[in-house]
Amino acid sequence: MEKPQMELWYTERQTPNHGITTKINKTLHHEVTDFQSLDVIETEQFGNMLVLDGMVMTTDIDEFVYHEMITHIAMNTHPNPKNVLVVGGGDGGVIREILKHSSVEKAVLAEIDGGVIEASKKYFPEIASGLFGDARVDIQVADGIKHIAENKNKYDVIMVDSTEPVGPAVGLFEKGFYEGIREALKEDGIMVAQTESPWFNRDLIRRVFADLSATFPITRLYTASIPTYPSGLWSFTIGSKKHDPLAVDVQELPALDTKYYRPEIHKTVFELPQFVRELTVKEEK
Amino acid sequence: MEKPQMELWYTERQTPNHGITTKINKTLHHEVTDFQSLDVIETEQFGNMLVLDGMVMTTDIDEFVYHEMITHIAMNTHPNPKNVLVVGGGDGGVIREILKHSSVEKAVLAEIDGGVIEASKKYFPEIASGLFGDARVDIQVADGIKHIAENKNKYDVIMVDSTEPVGPAVGLFEKGFYEGIREALKEDGIMVAQTESPWFNRDLIRRVFADLSATFPITRLYTASIPTYPSGLWSFTIGSKKHDPLAVDVQELPALDTKYYRPEIHKTVFELPQFVRELTVKEEK
Repeated sequence: MEKPQMELWYTERQTPNHGITTKINKTLHHEVTDFQSLDVIETEQFGNMLVLDGMVMTTDIDEFVYHEMITHIAMNTHPNPKNVLVVGGGDGGVIREILKHSSVEKAVLAEIDGGVIEASKKYFPEIASGLFGDARVDIQVADGIKHIAENKNKYDVIMVDSTEPVGPAVGLFEKGFYEGIREALKEDGIMVAQTESPWFNRDLIRRVFADLSATFPITRLYTASIPTYPSGLWSFTIGSKKHDPLAVDVQELPALDTKYYRPEIHKTVFELPQFVRELTVKEEK
Repeated sequence: MEKPQMELWYTERQTPNHGITTKINKTLHHEVTDFQSLDVIETEQFGNMLVLDGMVMTTDIDEFVYHEMITHIAMNTHPNPKNVLVVGGGDGGVIREILKHSSVEKAVLAEIDGGVIEASKKYFPEIASGLFGDARVDIQVADGIKHIAENKNKYDVIMVDSTEPVGPAVGLFEKGFYEGIREALKEDGIMVAQTESPWFNRDLIRRVFADLSATFPITRLYTASIPTYPSGLWSFTIGSKKHDPLAVDVQELPALDTKYYRPEIHKTVFELPQFVRELTVKEEK
């Protein structure tokens, strides 16, 4: 007979009044880096889980959704992405997805917190696989805002893989940052940012969409299902100088080894439910 | 200065190892009916919440997704739905949505638990609005399985708005029940059932899809975002004798007063992410 054991549950208050709770086997890692509190816990339901400042960033089980969906829509919209920048994204999952595109010559990671990179290599080797020695990858432990300011007309695609807009990531949700990204992109460049939950962060999504609309000729919002993120529904916003994700010929898209993204959903993810679509339409409240 | 107060949180273990937790102001209602435990709680995040046997059934804030999405896909696929049956659905939300279709002559509710109907009328008057005296509505406190067995060639659309497949709802997920529905439908009838989470209930979805594929010539799976349901992603499965939701001319669909459903998403919700699509494809595992 098994002896009764203490149960440990990790609870994230995703809003002041609501959250998720998940059973954990043990804490694998805890540190306070120069930028944030960093924990890795082993959960029963979602495998290893990376938690920054008390917020779930990624897990073994559902990481594929976020990493594929922030990456492949933009990459498959640009006809020939060679130079790609990831701002944030220290876990390496976006880099791994970028490297699935054969056109890529250089993938730069500008992650402000080296602790995230090291912890991910150790506890999430599958997610961080792109960080181990691919010659196309340039890992920079650096402030993404500074990197953007110092690079002009350089990138085909820029992905803003940030934490929530608190702590080190606040500046990554500001209009001036998006204007910097516009300058860092080539004349037909495209950017994408994670922009939180359409259920819980409606004002933020509306503001970012308006800021990107004022900065880029083409702005688009899409969503994906991520169970460990607040509400389970997550949004991404695209700003593009020339190429429209809705103008892509999906029949021509290359097959990719993916678990969420399919060429067949490349356009359909932009057909939003009414309560999400409202966030993108000026005339409606 | 406010005095400190006791905090009450309701936690649902949606799986043995994972769940949601939500702050409540008070319990509005508790009873044990002949069929299940029934609670209504007032939450901070989601307004009033109906809980059956410890599982969230609906809330003021996100109820529109489930009720619109189980209803309008099937209703807008059938060219002229006059007679409609809801099995379960005692909260009345599906009836409310059905009544938005002007073709409807009769909407029958077969709910086994009268306690759900009464509690919903009292605590969810907006959801239950269709249960208050519309002459087209026939409310029967009755076993849906028995109702199906006793009615042949009668309905244009049948919706299975069940609880989880435990307790009173077990029989609503069995192949024999779907065969009964086929007989209760007219020759061009269509059915839809809620079929749980593609993240947590993969075996169930795969089995129901296979059973419906063996029962109807047309079977389709689609999803919607429901934050208070396990994983935040919910699936619905359609079985149809003649009309294919993917063959609808969305330009011809009537405008409806809805917050999630739009004619523009009528077909796109069937383009599934790869890990969900796998559940519908025999050749793949």
